[in-house]
Amino acid sequence: MRRGRASLVFEHPPVIEAAASVAGKKEGEGPLRGRFDLVAEDDRMGKKTWEEAESAMQEAACRLALKKGGLERGQIQYLFAGDLLGQLIATSFGVADLEIPLFGLYGACSTIGEALCLGAMTVAAGYGERVLTVSSSHFATAEKQFRFPLGYGNQRPWSSTWTVTGSGAFVLASEEAAEEKSGPAGEKRGFPEPGQGGKPGGRAVISAVTVGKIADMGVKDSMNMGAAMAPAAYSTISRNFMDLGVGAEAYDRIITGDLGRVGSQALMDFMRAGGRDLSAVHMDCGLEIYDCAAQDTHAGGSGCGCSAVTLAASILGKVESGEWRRVLFVPTGALLSTVSFNEGRTIPGIAHGVVIEHRGPGERRG
Amino acid sequence: MRRGRASLVFEHPPVIEAAASVAGKKEGEGPLRGRFDLVAEDDRMGKKTWEEAESAMQEAACRLALKKGGLERGQIQYLFAGDLLGQLIATSFGVADLEIPLFGLYGACSTIGEALCLGAMTVAAGYGERVLTVSSSHFATAEKQFRFPLGYGNQRPWSSTWTVTGSGAFVLASEEAAEEKSGPAGEKRGFPEPGQGGKPGGRAVISAVTVGKIADMGVKDSMNMGAAMAPAAYSTISRNFMDLGVGAEAYDRIITGDLGRVGSQALMDFMRAGGRDLSAVHMDCGLEIYDCAAQDTHAGGSGCGCSAVTLAASILGKVESGEWRRVLFVPTGALLSTVSFNEGRTIPGIAHGVVIEHRGPGERRG
Repeated sequence: MRRGRASLVFEHPPVIEAAASVAGKKEGEGPLRGRFDLVAEDDRMGKKTWEEAESAMQEAACRLALKKGGLERGQIQYLFAGDLLGQLIATSFGVADLEIPLFGLYGACSTIGEALCLGAMTVAAGYGERVLTVSSSHFATAEKQFRFPLGYGNQRPWSSTWTVTGSGAFVLASEEAAEEKSGPAGEKRGFPEPGQGGKPGGRAVISAVTVGKIADMGVKDSMNMGAAMAPAAYSTISRNFMDLGVGAEAYDRIITGDLGRVGSQALMDFMRAGGRDLSAVHMDCGLEIYDCAAQDTHAGGSGCGCSAVTLAASILGKVESGEWRRVLFVPTGALLSTVSFNEGRTIPGIAHGVVIEHRGPGERRG
Repeated sequence: MRRGRASLVFEHPPVIEAAASVAGKKEGEGPLRGRFDLVAEDDRMGKKTWEEAESAMQEAACRLALKKGGLERGQIQYLFAGDLLGQLIATSFGVADLEIPLFGLYGACSTIGEALCLGAMTVAAGYGERVLTVSSSHFATAEKQFRFPLGYGNQRPWSSTWTVTGSGAFVLASEEAAEEKSGPAGEKRGFPEPGQGGKPGGRAVISAVTVGKIADMGVKDSMNMGAAMAPAAYSTISRNFMDLGVGAEAYDRIITGDLGRVGSQALMDFMRAGGRDLSAVHMDCGLEIYDCAAQDTHAGGSGCGCSAVTLAASILGKVESGEWRRVLFVPTGALLSTVSFNEGRTIPGIAHGVVIEHRGPGERRG
């Protein structure tokens, strides 16, 4: 294990052994339609409250990831989980029945990044053969908590993003455990999913992580979260380049979480000012998940679920198939709270970087 | 490293190299008076809002811990931090200026336990020579968020606890880094503090951790958090005994976070029903920090700060001096949210166990 100031490079990269995505109705009608493991028929998931619905999505994502990996919950050592709601209630009520020792995490929309960092660190250290990571968000619970009652029907500025309804879950396993389960090249698994291209037998591993710092450039507009988060994305991507001694060309894609249109532009500008051009490799989950014009989502998607479901439903398959050899996945979070917002404070941001690499048959410990 | 289902026993136990406690006025007048590193003259800490005050306490605790350890913030690889407030705003605004890569954690009042678990795992794995862990709570921010406006002057039932105003921070270091800094027996440090008894030269190490699961026995009374948390404490302590193959006699003290009078009694009853008697070794930080009758705090203290400041101000010195050889520190959290509470849901609990042991001069890798 080699380490830079904020980054760790794993000698034995944990394998992303299984993943599952649960999406809301709107997300299921967007550009990633057909790729999700489960699309809610209605966003209440048959529950009485939006919060219960979000919990149900988180639980469903976890159970689906276990099922897809052919695993029982007793095979999972630890669970790393979080959501956007105060006191993480989507998580508390969502994962309780799994009865797995839990680390509750809060990194706003960067939470799945934080969970993958800590989960990979835990597996790579040999603390457990397998851990589970999950995050979720829900348009209705987030609007209720952070903005206006849905019935109020307020207008949204073009810079605003639309909170993704959905949850993504990932099982991380040691190479040994994954090989024992599904053969040296993963050939016993079903990946890649039909329609995702590439050859079967590949795996995605987490080869390095770059843990983010809080970045705050004074943005106070809760309807422009992209601007609030762009400095954090800039900080983490730059730190990743520095710690690993690489540049943008080292990655097939650099994938931010939910900067949306405004934040992505700001990130490009920051990077260019720092002498780096990301435009050839940058993509943003918030711009992948919706057809913004047709679906009326303005600057793009956001929320803890945005990057998580996009990773599970789309990115991962491309890495497993080898279409992309190496990506830098950077979920971005705006640490917005109504209390601090109403007290006139800024919206600090944070972003965590996860290097996800392809391993083909025979390519072990590359 | 040996591991049980939820526990890890470290081959190279990280050292608690430095600790600091910042307390509010009321806490500074309680049984631990004179033991805190800083007592606020007023609980606003000179700030405009209670939330800013809590952030200031968290930052002060971090800076004091670094100072007491003779360390610069650049020597800290990662920060594990959290608080009770929605979106962890005490943390976001408290630690931003430290510019240390941050893992935001939420475990309600168990947060310092979660932070010490993850911090110890990180150091023991060799991911960093030093990490910092911190948590905070504030009576006024918590009442505002979870209960009634202070000005309303509502009556409190006897089962209610009083949220501790304060923050505790801990530097965890590898044995090698700690020895290099302060000599093989820690003799270059000032510990133990005057008046804490024992001989100088000892250290406290984290030898094992037991990560908690969510425990929910259906308690819905937000004025009786002790009852909500007792099942979680029971679950984690029992699991620790099982995983490590020990009983209550293995510990000089088993120290819960903030069960208070009601929750402590419930824990004793649960344990007795399971054939274990903890009464000889149990103590609760919530009952240590206040003189409940004289200070009108009813069932005791609570909050993320409760167990953190008690560990820093009182427990740690007794372990370092060798007065206690081995304690099981079990911060307890009630995952209460006003949203779920108002929707009629229960209050789930969680507790994380941290085994803290004395290492005397020459006792390395015991």
